[in-house]
Amino acid sequence: MTRTTVASSAKQLSSSINNQLRHYSAPIDSSIPGSKLKFVPTSGTYPKGFRVSATHVGVKPSNTKNADLAFIISDTPAFGAAVFTTNRFQAAPVQVSRKILETRGGAGIRSIIINSGCANAVTGQGGLEDAQAMSDTASTMFQQRDQPDDTQGSNSLVMSTGVIGQRLPTKKILSKISTAYKNLGDDHAAWLATAKAICTTDTFPKLLSTSFRLPGKHHDGIEYRLAGMTKGAGMIHPNMATLLGVLCTDAPISQRALKPLLVEAAKKSFNAISIDGDTSTNDTLAILANGAAAADQETPPIEPGTEDYDAMQTVLTDFATRLSQLVVRDGEGATKFVEVRVRNAKSESDAKLIASTIARSPLVKTALYGKDANWGRILCAIGYTQGLSSEDSVVPASTNVSFIPADNSATKEEGVLRLLVDGEPEQVDEERAARLLEDEDLIVDVNLGTGKQEASYWFCDFSHEYVTINGDYRT
Amino acid sequence: MTRTTVASSAKQLSSSINNQLRHYSAPIDSSIPGSKLKFVPTSGTYPKGFRVSATHVGVKPSNTKNADLAFIISDTPAFGAAVFTTNRFQAAPVQVSRKILETRGGAGIRSIIINSGCANAVTGQGGLEDAQAMSDTASTMFQQRDQPDDTQGSNSLVMSTGVIGQRLPTKKILSKISTAYKNLGDDHAAWLATAKAICTTDTFPKLLSTSFRLPGKHHDGIEYRLAGMTKGAGMIHPNMATLLGVLCTDAPISQRALKPLLVEAAKKSFNAISIDGDTSTNDTLAILANGAAAADQETPPIEPGTEDYDAMQTVLTDFATRLSQLVVRDGEGATKFVEVRVRNAKSESDAKLIASTIARSPLVKTALYGKDANWGRILCAIGYTQGLSSEDSVVPASTNVSFIPADNSATKEEGVLRLLVDGEPEQVDEERAARLLEDEDLIVDVNLGTGKQEASYWFCDFSHEYVTINGDYRT
Repeated sequence: MTRTTVASSAKQLSSSINNQLRHYSAPIDSSIPGSKLKFVPTSGTYPKGFRVSATHVGVKPSNTKNADLAFIISDTPAFGAAVFTTNRFQAAPVQVSRKILETRGGAGIRSIIINSGCANAVTGQGGLEDAQAMSDTASTMFQQRDQPDDTQGSNSLVMSTGVIGQRLPTKKILSKISTAYKNLGDDHAAWLATAKAICTTDTFPKLLSTSFRLPGKHHDGIEYRLAGMTKGAGMIHPNMATLLGVLCTDAPISQRALKPLLVEAAKKSFNAISIDGDTSTNDTLAILANGAAAADQETPPIEPGTEDYDAMQTVLTDFATRLSQLVVRDGEGATKFVEVRVRNAKSESDAKLIASTIARSPLVKTALYGKDANWGRILCAIGYTQGLSSEDSVVPASTNVSFIPADNSATKEEGVLRLLVDGEPEQVDEERAARLLEDEDLIVDVNLGTGKQEASYWFCDFSHEYVTINGDYRT
Repeated sequence: MTRTTVASSAKQLSSSINNQLRHYSAPIDSSIPGSKLKFVPTSGTYPKGFRVSATHVGVKPSNTKNADLAFIISDTPAFGAAVFTTNRFQAAPVQVSRKILETRGGAGIRSIIINSGCANAVTGQGGLEDAQAMSDTASTMFQQRDQPDDTQGSNSLVMSTGVIGQRLPTKKILSKISTAYKNLGDDHAAWLATAKAICTTDTFPKLLSTSFRLPGKHHDGIEYRLAGMTKGAGMIHPNMATLLGVLCTDAPISQRALKPLLVEAAKKSFNAISIDGDTSTNDTLAILANGAAAADQETPPIEPGTEDYDAMQTVLTDFATRLSQLVVRDGEGATKFVEVRVRNAKSESDAKLIASTIARSPLVKTALYGKDANWGRILCAIGYTQGLSSEDSVVPASTNVSFIPADNSATKEEGVLRLLVDGEPEQVDEERAARLLEDEDLIVDVNLGTGKQEASYWFCDFSHEYVTINGDYRT
């Protein structure tokens, strides 16, 4: 059902590119490291009725040329939903966007305005006014033009990423919003530039698009599209790993279906990745659905409890998962991309807690960096996972840990490197382990043998580069 | 009341020693790095009726000369108690020691036998038999000699640390236990050698001793003594950060008082330190109390609910805190020793959860390594702390964060560098911040302003060296 135009073209590229360590931070000339080019699409299929732009503001005074204002608009009022950081210190744009969605009941959203270079976090009342002003000015673009009767106030969500504890150069930003409106476009170049404008220390823009069909008869013959961009996880003094994500679809999703679809997708994607376990003040994932692909065919919107809803959920979760994985691919200093699968757990929550504990263990992460098949550290992390549902969630004698190569051999029995079988260590073939750990990608398979539930998590390793980047080390 | 003979002599040493980064692991010749010498006592006051020894076994075949078997005995039956790792994978010696304490109700304990070089963890039924055999053989030393009527089986606790997933060379170890018994001594050299024998990749032995008096009239004129040793947190493939600790006192502590005293002391010491947040399969902290100092004066034992109990608790907690801090001093690759104090919290549990979250944040730890006054990352960690008692546990507008130098100026107002005041960032004097962060020691003060409880945590930074050590990086 899901067809990805990006993945195939990216694969063609990848074969000719060598793996390279990323540099200290994003190159100053904004060039993309060779090892990351395979993750950047060269074309895409974008949803109807959306236009996007990237505009230079110079939020950071040192930025004299790179676009740092992204504007994503829907030509018609869209339904909108978002999930926000659970951090108790919530940045001003998080508070403002949340309020707008609440006030409008998630309806009549026209745009998302995003600046990079300053997170507008821990900025007090003034910061709230700045975020509101960005949203208001963006909203004006539509209120003046085609919605004079909209009395519910701002219809633009707002996001910021960058330095915290500093006020936005608000006047400068506001003065460029009409330029951003004039710059709007709907081709691949516009989407890619916009994905780049939300980046901070990312080494490559994170953009995906896909097209799909829905099973219901009303949707017969209609091709829907879904595009998404994300950024993170780059942190240089005093930035934090703000994770921003925007999803846009031209499928007709109802107001009450949109939020649960997003929440479920986020649970298995953006909430199942880890760079270093730190959760920022600004994390936001938003979705807009304008129904433009079906607008002239009077197609009824997707409602909860239907076959179309389930299909949409599958598409959205799969898409969000792939998008979120790009964040891990660009983890600071990362040399490994690891999926940890926890299977046969007593509950999905148990599986996720264990996967997340493994993904956050500095000992596991440094061992992977060192290409060391250190099952002891994985076992140890399983054993100290907090908050499991019962005493029997982990039983040493039924615990199995294996490494699986993340290529086609993953399905073959001979591809599996067993490390721990029913709680007893295997004699590890160190040579095979070393070969397996030479690859950038790896699957860590944990079979708890205590139930039937499972969960996956994606993470990267801890490298010297990670310490260099985050220590802002002065040599 | 508490007098520490070690601290003063250590201080004299410290002034002449420069700070140095530790090497890849413990030097092969067992020499102690110059920067750590100040933490190693040159004399001590040790409890009566205890004798200790360090004997070479060669648990690791590559170890041809360093002592790796520690034997700590009480000349008379002692009360014993222990706290063990909460990891669900519990090493064989943990299971055996726990059983012995249960069977005997914590009474009639004669010794602790400890090997380094192999953790006897994840070794199945055979491993349990090995640990039991170590305990049984150690017990024989006393059963044959002076306790023919003791029918409760083993009276020796057992601990192991080192590689996991490998069986002990049990015959080799057992054959050396009578030598270990013959080697027993009670002078400083014997205690220091024993503290060294339990080390793995530690760069220095961790030993403290102190003497104290108790307020009750029965204790008038009696000097009690308390000695302790610990090891951790060194991990090289496939070791984990086993933390072992042994406390011995000649004070007369009753059977039912000993365990709660230890649990409370551990809560504020060994359970309030963090190297990297990983909890091992072998962690054990044990205490023996033989009452030898008071034995000929018919002094009644310390019982719960008395003035003496409270005094003993203060002594023990203070002592265990200083001992546990030595583990942080030897944290892998550590260049900083940081105390985080969380004050004015709604509950002690809230304060401890927040302190522990800050202590575990890779972003905070790398910023400290980089000598970066990055309050944003501290704030962020406060904000994402899980499991707090209520929604109002953290209120941005009442949150204060400061850095305090860990020397005498800590008490002076001008020594405090305010970073965040009532949720608003301060204009930081970067030059002063830089000076403050040049010191090895630092206090991070968090004032939540939501209650009256507090907790402290001690941790170290994440350095390139940490990644090198734990990545076992092959250059």
